[in-house]
Order: sequence, then structure tokens, then C-alpha cells
Amino acid sequence: MLLSGMNKAKKAAIIMGSGSDYPVLRKAEETLASFGISFETHVMSAHRTPARARDFALSAREAGFGVIIAAAGKAAHLAGFLASHTTLPVIGIPVKSSALDGLDALLSTVQMPGGIPVATVAIDGAENAAILAAQILSLDDPELTGKLLKKREEMAAAVNEQDREIQQHGKG
Amino acid sequence: MLLSGMNKAKKAAIIMGSGSDYPVLRKAEETLASFGISFETHVMSAHRTPARARDFALSAREAGFGVIIAAAGKAAHLAGFLASHTTLPVIGIPVKSSALDGLDALLSTVQMPGGIPVATVAIDGAENAAILAAQILSLDDPELTGKLLKKREEMAAAVNEQDREIQQHGKG
Amino acid sequence: MLLSGMNKAKKAAIIMGSGSDYPVLRKAEETLASFGISFETHVMSAHRTPARARDFALSAREAGFGVIIAAAGKAAHLAGFLASHTTLPVIGIPVKSSALDGLDALLSTVQMPGGIPVATVAIDGAENAAILAAQILSLDDPELTGKLLKKREEMAAAVNEQDREIQQHGKG
Amino acid sequence: MLLSGMNKAKKAAIIMGSGSDYPVLRKAEETLASFGISFETHVMSAHRTPARARDFALSAREAGFGVIIAAAGKAAHLAGFLASHTTLPVIGIPVKSSALDGLDALLSTVQMPGGIPVATVAIDGAENAAILAAQILSLDDPELTGKLLKKREEMAAAVNEQDREIQQHGKG
Amino acid sequence: MLLSGMNKAKKAAIIMGSGSDYPVLRKAEETLASFGISFETHVMSAHRTPARARDFALSAREAGFGVIIAAAGKAAHLAGFLASHTTLPVIGIPVKSSALDGLDALLSTVQMPGGIPVATVAIDGAENAAILAAQILSLDDPELTGKLLKKREEMAAAVNEQDREIQQHGKG
Amino acid sequence: MLLSGMNKAKKAAIIMGSGSDYPVLRKAEETLASFGISFETHVMSAHRTPARARDFALSAREAGFGVIIAAAGKAAHLAGFLASHTTLPVIGIPVKSSALDGLDALLSTVQMPGGIPVATVAIDGAENAAILAAQILSLDDPELTGKLLKKREEMAAAVNEQDREIQQHGKG
Amino acid sequence: MLLSGMNKAKKAAIIMGSGSDYPVLRKAEETLASFGISFETHVMSAHRTPARARDFALSAREAGFGVIIAAAGKAAHLAGFLASHTTLPVIGIPVKSSALDGLDALLSTVQMPGGIPVATVAIDGAENAAILAAQILSLDDPELTGKLLKKREEMAAAVNEQDREIQQHGKG
Amino acid sequence: MLLSGMNKAKKAAIIMGSGSDYPVLRKAEETLASFGISFETHVMSAHRTPARARDFALSAREAGFGVIIAAAGKAAHLAGFLASHTTLPVIGIPVKSSALDGLDALLSTVQMPGGIPVATVAIDGAENAAILAAQILSLDDPELTGKLLKKREEMAAAVNEQDREIQQHGKG
Repeated sequence: MLLSGMNKAKKAAIIMGSGSDYPVLRKAEETLASFGISFETHVMSAHRTPARARDFALSAREAGFGVIIAAAGKAAHLAGFLASHTTLPVIGIPVKSSALDGLDALLSTVQMPGGIPVATVAIDGAENAAILAAQILSLDDPELTGKLLKKREEMAAAVNEQDREIQQHGKG
Repeated sequence: MLLSGMNKAKKAAIIMGSGSDYPVLRKAEETLASFGISFETHVMSAHRTPARARDFALSAREAGFGVIIAAAGKAAHLAGFLASHTTLPVIGIPVKSSALDGLDALLSTVQMPGGIPVATVAIDGAENAAILAAQILSLDDPELTGKLLKKREEMAAAVNEQDREIQQHGKG
Repeated sequence: MLLSGMNKAKKAAIIMGSGSDYPVLRKAEETLASFGISFETHVMSAHRTPARARDFALSAREAGFGVIIAAAGKAAHLAGFLASHTTLPVIGIPVKSSALDGLDALLSTVQMPGGIPVATVAIDGAENAAILAAQILSLDDPELTGKLLKKREEMAAAVNEQDREIQQHGKG
Repeated sequence: MLLSGMNKAKKAAIIMGSGSDYPVLRKAEETLASFGISFETHVMSAHRTPARARDFALSAREAGFGVIIAAAGKAAHLAGFLASHTTLPVIGIPVKSSALDGLDALLSTVQMPGGIPVATVAIDGAENAAILAAQILSLDDPELTGKLLKKREEMAAAVNEQDREIQQHGKG
Repeated sequence: MLLSGMNKAKKAAIIMGSGSDYPVLRKAEETLASFGISFETHVMSAHRTPARARDFALSAREAGFGVIIAAAGKAAHLAGFLASHTTLPVIGIPVKSSALDGLDALLSTVQMPGGIPVATVAIDGAENAAILAAQILSLDDPELTGKLLKKREEMAAAVNEQDREIQQHGKG
Repeated sequence: MLLSGMNKAKKAAIIMGSGSDYPVLRKAEETLASFGISFETHVMSAHRTPARARDFALSAREAGFGVIIAAAGKAAHLAGFLASHTTLPVIGIPVKSSALDGLDALLSTVQMPGGIPVATVAIDGAENAAILAAQILSLDDPELTGKLLKKREEMAAAVNEQDREIQQHGKG
Repeated sequence: MLLSGMNKAKKAAIIMGSGSDYPVLRKAEETLASFGISFETHVMSAHRTPARARDFALSAREAGFGVIIAAAGKAAHLAGFLASHTTLPVIGIPVKSSALDGLDALLSTVQMPGGIPVATVAIDGAENAAILAAQILSLDDPELTGKLLKKREEMAAAVNEQDREIQQHGKG
Repeated sequence: MLLSGMNKAKKAAIIMGSGSDYPVLRKAEETLASFGISFETHVMSAHRTPARARDFALSAREAGFGVIIAAAGKAAHLAGFLASHTTLPVIGIPVKSSALDGLDALLSTVQMPGGIPVATVAIDGAENAAILAAQILSLDDPELTGKLLKKREEMAAAVNEQDREIQQHGKG
């Protein structure tokens, strides 16, 4: 709407290191969709398909993406790998795997060395990754800002509804 | 107002929970300044001055901020507190304190419950917080994007220079 | 008002960040009830309904509460949030969630910075939170003190009964 | 006896497992003194002088104490030991020692089994232990409540003063 | 008395903090029985029945015990509590509970401060606790030493048998 | 003998500390087999059959082995034990057991003191151990190098196939 | 031989994996000496001198030792290695090294698999290792038992003396 | 080409993510040199100079390298990055940085997902990385094997010498 960059709403990318992470990421897709944000979902591995992941990151800004969400488990290098090939903000989701409770993925994602940040959210925090993506894309988009505020109100209403139920049925 | 918001470059805010965190945050100030990004630095505590912190967050978007950087140690609630009062992206810097090596601040910052994300960077990662802020603000700002690319090149050149020094003086 | 405050037994509040924590907190309700302590149970989120949580904490002392029990998981800010808006003692229960075994909630609850303490009990320690609340409320209440002593005796008797069973049926 | 209990302000006890913990506890003494709360400080070990520690705890309520603060490091059993011999609230301060960064003391203090709670504060959190003690003793003491509110205001003022200094001398 | 002490084989005690730990401890009973060591099994809590636990420990040596095995979970104080009331060797078994994977019980058991050691074995290591007890009791007992050597041979044979099975049925 | 060593492809050994680790190690057997690498699988315990384990390691190079894979859980000493008796590269697989999520096995395997390295892979990382063995054996084996490259291509193709499936059936 | 074994007081062995651990172990030497227990101190490495360590352990009982104290850092295999070659009780001291705060040594020492226990004491807990050794050797030695009781009294007196000093000079 | 590969001794590469890691890596250089192994040392960053790091790894085998040692701190992706671009064995050294004691670098290096192994050694384990490299390169090199055996003997002699010193000067 701003004309060049502002004319076209920017897309979000959801990248996962393995198809087995998809169940965790569905929530990110649903949340982005609820905000009316266009997105693409891809499986790309920092270690098994580095060339494709690099090419994606290198051209992501030009391809109309405004933010990249990357999810990986264990020694989770994917978000950092993508971040090193783009100046777009990259959001990292550490995925919990069978051992170490996700601590390995969390540290591998968040403890990035100086120069290449990854915006890390909670372990398996796909919904929050999508909300953060929406917040980033909302900076010049009053309509999206309004949707974020509306979601906040809905979340508050849901908490209040839980409270009412406990007042009625609980023994407090 | 939409237009002015779009026309004027957005500011960054740097908020710390205690003045004792300032030495860590100087690097964030320097990095933002190197990108030509306007910023304000404040001491506000989620626990000791919650009203002022809330008011700041509630009005931050309207006041021309595009991103908030928040740094705190121990049970670091500041970033999450600010995030719960704004739809702007909030970047959290866990600050290492004397015990537990910063793990407490990291988990308190990154493990946010569903609905209120904090974009967490590494422990004491002030430079990366500022770069992430710049990336977020660069989405519709080709000039800032160019500066980010230039910084990447400088970082690469610095690594390459270190390599050359080792080739010359090392025994490899 | 001082007199009325002294004459009337004070209430306990049980606050949870999400209705999903309620199963853990039932034990706190049962324990308070067993001591004859009046209590209210509420769902309030530090991040999703901060205004309501703040208002509750600000008026809790005047509303006749003597202690607040707060339970939350992950980056558990609820107890600290409430504590920053009241001078009543706040007891924090870290709730175990799916990742990190509750360590995140424990550190986010107990590692409060100087000035705003949270009286933290064990992960999922709802019964102990209620007993601690009773101990706090018992300072000028010999009847409640007597009930606490009686519970101690019952606990000892239960351990002794377990011992007797093993003597009879075990192979020791 | 109820009346006498109400008429006389209750004392706080500060118990440490070893004299080497005293530097950490000075801050608790200063804070209690600043609130005008009477206190006694003792060295008693759960493991080296269990009989004396038990006797102290068993008679603490009758001796006019309203709350016990206990500090210990490593496998910190002191707070739990005292708590098992009194129905007064016991506040535990995990003390950081040379290895494991205080995590051992924290878990040994906070993870109490059902029935015997310890109100745990942060590692080396002596000031917060004293404030929590004051909060517990303030329930029927409007004057002490007033002092707690005044301390909150002073803490807020200190934060605000730090903020002003950065505005003047910082480069924000 | 020295002679009688040498003439009569010493007993082992198995103490658990809660009857719920008994399934873990069965293996200790079986192992002691397999060595022909007399033992008694008791439920005694450091926090809920401290007087009985103290009395047991104080008189254990005179009652003919040579070693005490103590098992407890969470903030596991039982082994240290018993150790502080006897000069007999006390073997501690940290019991895994629902949160923190047993790390809390391990640190609470092993990190004993100077002067009161606990001979700690692995989390849920009931069999090893019994073998260690047998080793301690074997010092002047060539027959028991022989049984320990025989168990070593049986363990080696079991490993070798597993090896043979894999050679026959595996695909190596 | 040098020639024969070069002419004959070297074997891999898979050693586990207990037959219960075999399910984890099947994947290592399959992977080695897929590369056409000869291997032997054995159960040998550093603690229960140290003599046999030592003899195996001492003679492994002469017996035609080029690499040893060792898997063990808890205080996993097996890989280090074998490594101390051979100059062949030893690959350690930390095996996750019921407590501590495999962290104990990981640290016991990887944190070897100076002089005796163990090439440690991820917790339960049997497939990677086999691939690493193949990489080590491939140094003078162009055919095996070719197989490794082919496996890389297959892995990339599998990732790409997952990506295609999500494009077709996902909602991205 | 049985008689001679009973007639002669048994010796303790102190074994360290590296001479750099000696400063930590001096305290064990002093403590054993204070009890009048004969001991030998040796540097033997599970990984660098396995044959000598094995030979020592295999012959230790016959050589008149009653207990072995073993200290090592990082992936601390020494105690377990010795334990696998003797039926004497082996006490393990995890030694803190530069990284991981001694957690690696603790887990490598204590988490021994079934069959081969190590009696683990606290990180750097050399004094407690010596006291535990004395307790083990005291089972049929009333004189040593008396010395252990005397040490307990001295420790209690030291705590009481610390208490008196604080009463006199502290501000409590 | 096979013959030339066999005729010429292979080189080792030492790659660090930042010049600040060089002091740690000097020990690797010295150790490789002591074995007479040719090596090159380079600074290359997975995140700041990914293209150069990739090109190096892609051509390393052809350039005559037989093994790559990679050292990095924090979210240490370097070893995995190199491993994903070569079928040579890659040895990873996690480097301890200021926070988290090197645990982040360890998990980021060792917990590699299936398909791309990294042979991980201890935190800051540069000497062991070099020894492991030598072991890998020794498979068809009896001379290098001999040097490795000689180093083992020297290490044993050093331990034995430490033992002698303690016998002479210690009080054991």
C-alpha cells in the first residue's frame, strides 16, 4: 500500500528441518492464516539440503518474504543457517526431541554468536513464532495491528471465561 | 497518521531492569547508532516500577517505536512484561548474573507461554539484539537493508583478516 | 479497620495462569479447606489479563486476603507479577509443563530480583503451598496452629502405619 | 495468650548452617533492622548440631518468633530440618558455594516433599528473605505494612533515578 | 563387646522416606538376602517422623547394624539426617520422582557439607546400594567376600551369555 | 603386513555394555551393512567383563578392525575404557536410560581427560556412529567414499520428497 | 589369614587420576592421619596407566587395604575402574575442573550401572571421603568409633563457637 | 589417484569460528606437529563466512585432507556445517565461553541429527582432537601408529613419575 514495499503485504516462510516436525508447526500455519498472512511451508535441512536452504534464504527478501520461521530439533542449526544467508529477521523454534527435553535445541538456536541473531521463542512454541512474525509484519500495517489487538482481547476473554467456569463449578 | 508512521523511520527502545545492566547494553546502543537508528534507553523494572513500564509499552507504538529491546537478569520478567502490553515485537536479552550462569534469565525470557512471544537472543547478546532490531526495522527500508548487508561484509572481512594473520604468524 | 482486620480470619487466594493448571491446584483447595481457611480461586494471567491481575493484587489486602498462592508454568511470571503489586506474602508454585521438566518455571518463580520476594515451593507443590499459607495465617491464630500440629501428627501416624505394614508383609 | 501474641510484635530468627555464610546474611539483618523488626542471628547446623537446631525450632513459636530465615549451601537441609520441627513459616535461602553454582542448594531447599514446606527465595537472596519475613509479620501490623509500602516507593524512586542518570549522561 | 561385635555378623538397615519408595527398594532387599545378610526395612521420614528416625540412627550401631541404606526423593534429606546421628556408614539412594528426573534427589543426597558424608549411589540404584553394603560388611568376613566374588563371576557370565546370543541370532 | 592391511578392507566393531542396549544399536548394524562394511557386534562391559573388553581392544587393530563403536548408558565408561587400550579411533554412543535423559552418559563419554579421546556422537545416535565409522574407513577407499556421497544424495532426496508432500497436501 | 586380617588395622588407599588433583586430596590425607588410619597415596590413571591401576585394585584387599578413595575429574572413570577390580568399598570424589562445574565428574562417578557401586561423596569432598573411610573401617574398631564420635563433638563445638562469636560481635 | 592418495600422507585441517579461539587450539597444532602430521589452520565462520567455509569443506578431500578439526563456542554450528559439506570425518571441539560453561557449545556440536555425524571431544579438548585426528590418519600408517603408542607410553611414564614424586615428598 505504501507503493513499492508497502504495496504488497509481505509473506512469511515456515521452514522445518525434517517432515517429522510438521505436527508442531501446524499451529504456526493456523495462526498465520488467522491473521490473513500469506505463507509458504517448506522442509529444508541445514545439513542434508544446505544448497537449497541457502538459495531460499539468499532470495527470500526479494521473493517477497518479510520474516522466516525455522524449526529444528537436537543440535538445531537451521535457524542460524538461514539467518546467516539473509538480513530478514529469522524466528527460531527449538523442537523437543526424545532426549534432553529440548534443551539442546534451545541452546543451539538461541546462543548465536555475535553478528547473526536468531529471534528464539519457547521450545515447541509454534504459535508464538507466528504471533511474533505477525508483530514484525505489523509495523506499517494498521490492519494487522488491529488483528493482533483483537487476538489479545480474545485471549483475555478466554482467560476470563476459564475464571468464570471455576467460580461456578469449582469449590473456591 | 498512517502516512506519518510510514514516512518516519521508527525508533528502537532499549529498556533495562536495573542500571547495573547498562554496561552490557552499551553494545546495543553502539550498534543501533552505527545503523543510524534512533533509540531511547530507559531503566524500568517490571517489579519495582511496573506502572511506568506498562505505560511505556502501551504507548510505544504510537510514540514512534518499532521495536523494544529489554534486558534483565535472574527471573527476567521484563521482556515478557513489556510484550504483554504492546503488539510491537519485543527482543529479550537474558543477562548473566552471579549464580546459575544466566540459565535462569534465559529460561525466564524465552519460555513465554502461548500468546505473548519474546524474541530472545543469547545471554548478554546485546549486539545481536540491536542487529535483530535493525533487521525488523529494515523490512520497508532499503537503505537500512543495505547497511545490514554492509555489516555482513565487514564481519566477513574481519574473519578473513583473522585468517590471514594466522597464516602469516601462526605455525600452521 | 485494624480491629476488623484482626478480628476476622484472613482469606487465601489461589491464582493460576491458565485453567489447565487447575488439576494441580485442587490439592491446594482441599488442604486449605481442611484447615477451615476461606479462599477464592481465580484464573488470571500476568500476560493475557495483566490489568485484572494487577487490580486483584493491589486490592487483595484490603479485600481481606492474608496470602496469595500463584501457580504458573514455563516462564512463570505470575507469582512475581502479583508480588510486585501487593505487600502480602505471595507463594509461588512452579508448574511442570511438557518441556524442561519444570526447571524453567522453578527458576522463573524463585530467582526474583532484590526487593520483590516470592515464597517458592516445590514444582507442582500445591499441598505445601497451602500448608505454608496456613502457617503464615496461623501467627496470631492458636486454633489454626493447633490444626497444623494435628496435621503433623496425622502425617507422622501415616508414616508409622506404612512402616507397620512393611513389617508385617515385607520380607525385611 | 492470644492477646499477648497480638500485643507483642513477633521476632524473626536468622539461622545459618555455617559461620562462613554470615557475609551473605548481613543484608538480611540490615533489612530486618530497617523495618524495625527484632531478630536473633544464630549458627546452627542440621548435621553438626542437630539437637540444638531442633530445640530452637521446637520452642521458636513460644519464644516469640513469628518467622525463621534459614540459609545453607550445597545439600542444604537446614531450612527443611527447622521446618520439620515448627509450624512457623520457614524461609530458605540457598547459598551459592564453589561448585554447581548454587543449583544444589536451591533444589535441596525448594523441592521439599509433601507436608513440610519451605518458603524458598533466590540463591543468596538474603534481602528478599528479610522482606518476605516482614510481609509475613505485617498481616496484622498496619505500621509494618506502611513501611513495606514506603520501601516499594524508595525502590521505584531508585530505579527512576537510575533512568534519569542515563538520560543525562548516556547517549540514548 | 569387641569380640561379640566381631563374632556376630552385622545387620543392614533399609530406611525409606515414604512407603511409595518401596518398589524401588525391593531390589535392595533381594540383593542383601542373596548375600545372606540380615536386614530390617523401615519407613521413617526425616521431616514427618524426625524423632523416630533420630532414635533409630542413634542406637543403630549398638543394635547390631553395620550399615544403613536410606532412600528418598526430591529434596532428599533422609540419608544426611540419619548420617548426622550415627557414625555408621550411611548409603544414600536418590529416588527419581515426577519432576527434574531425580537430579534434585541426587544433589540433595550427595552434596553433603563437610563432616557428615553420605555414600551416594546412582538414582534408583537400590541393587548397588545393597552390594556396597555387602562390601562394607565384608571387610572381616571372608565368606561374604567370597559371595561378592561369586556374584562378580555371575555378572560376567551373564554378559558373556548376552554376547553369545547376539553372535548366534544377531546379524553381526 | 602393511600391504595386507591396505589391501583388505578394515572391519568395524560394535560393542555394547549391556544386551539391553541392542535395540538402539540395530541401526548401526543396518547402516554399516548398507555401506558393505564388515562388522562384529559384541556385549562387553567395562565393569563386569573388563578383562575380555581389554583383550578385545588390545588386539583389535591386529585383528583387522579399523574403528570401534561403543555404546553405554549412565556412567558410560565403556568407550573410554576401550579407547585406553587401543590406538584405533573409538566412537562413543551415549545411551539414554531412565533417569537424567542421557546427560550422564553424554558427559561420561565425551568429557574424556587429555590423552585418550572418544569420538562422541549424539545420545542414542547409532546411525551417525556408523556413518562416522564409514567416513573414517573411507579415507583410502574411493568406493566407500562414493557410497557416502550417494547416501548424502538419498538423504537430500528424502528431504525434498517431504517438502513436495507438504506442498501438495499441506495448506501452505 | 583371617585372624591376621582382623588383628591388623586395615589401611586406606588414596588414588588420584592426575597429580593436579593432589591439592584437593591433601585434606583426605590430613583427616585420615587425624584418625590414626594408615594410608598410601598414589597417582594412577584409569586411562593412562590402566594396567597398574588394575593390579593395584586386584591385590588391594590382600595387601591390607580396607577401603579405596579415588578422585578424578571430567569423565571421571577412575573410581568405577578400581571398583570393577576389587570387592573392597570404593569411595569416589568427583573433582571440579574448569568446565561444567564438576557436574560431569559427579555423574561419571555416581551413575554406575548395576553391579559395581561407587560410594560417591560431594564434588571436591575429600574430607568427607576420609571420614566415610573411617566410618567403614570403624565397624569392628571401638577405638576408631570413639575418635569419630569425638570429631562429631569437635565439629559441634566449632559451630557453637561460631554462634557465640556472632552473638558477641554481630548486631543480631 | 587411489595410489597417490595412499602414497601421500593426508593433512589435517584446524578450523576455528573466531580468532579468539586460537589460544585453545594451539595445543592441537602442537600435538599434530609432534606426530609429524601436516596441517593447516584457518579462521572460517559458519555464519559470517559461510561461502568460504563451504568451499573449503567441499574441496577438502581432494585437497589432500584426511580429517577436519573444527572449534566453536556458544551455538557452535561450525563443525556440523563443515560436516554437511564433506564426507571426511569432522572432529568438533566445543569451546567454553563466558556463559553456560560450554554446555551450549557441547550440545550444539554433539547432538547432530541423523545423517551428519560430528566426532565430538571434550569442551576445550584441543589436544584430544589432535590425537583423535592422528588415530584416524593412522589406520594405514604403521609409523604413525607407532608414534601413538609411544605417546601412550610417555603419558603413562608421566603419571608414574607424578606417583613417585608423591611417594617421596607426600606424607602418604
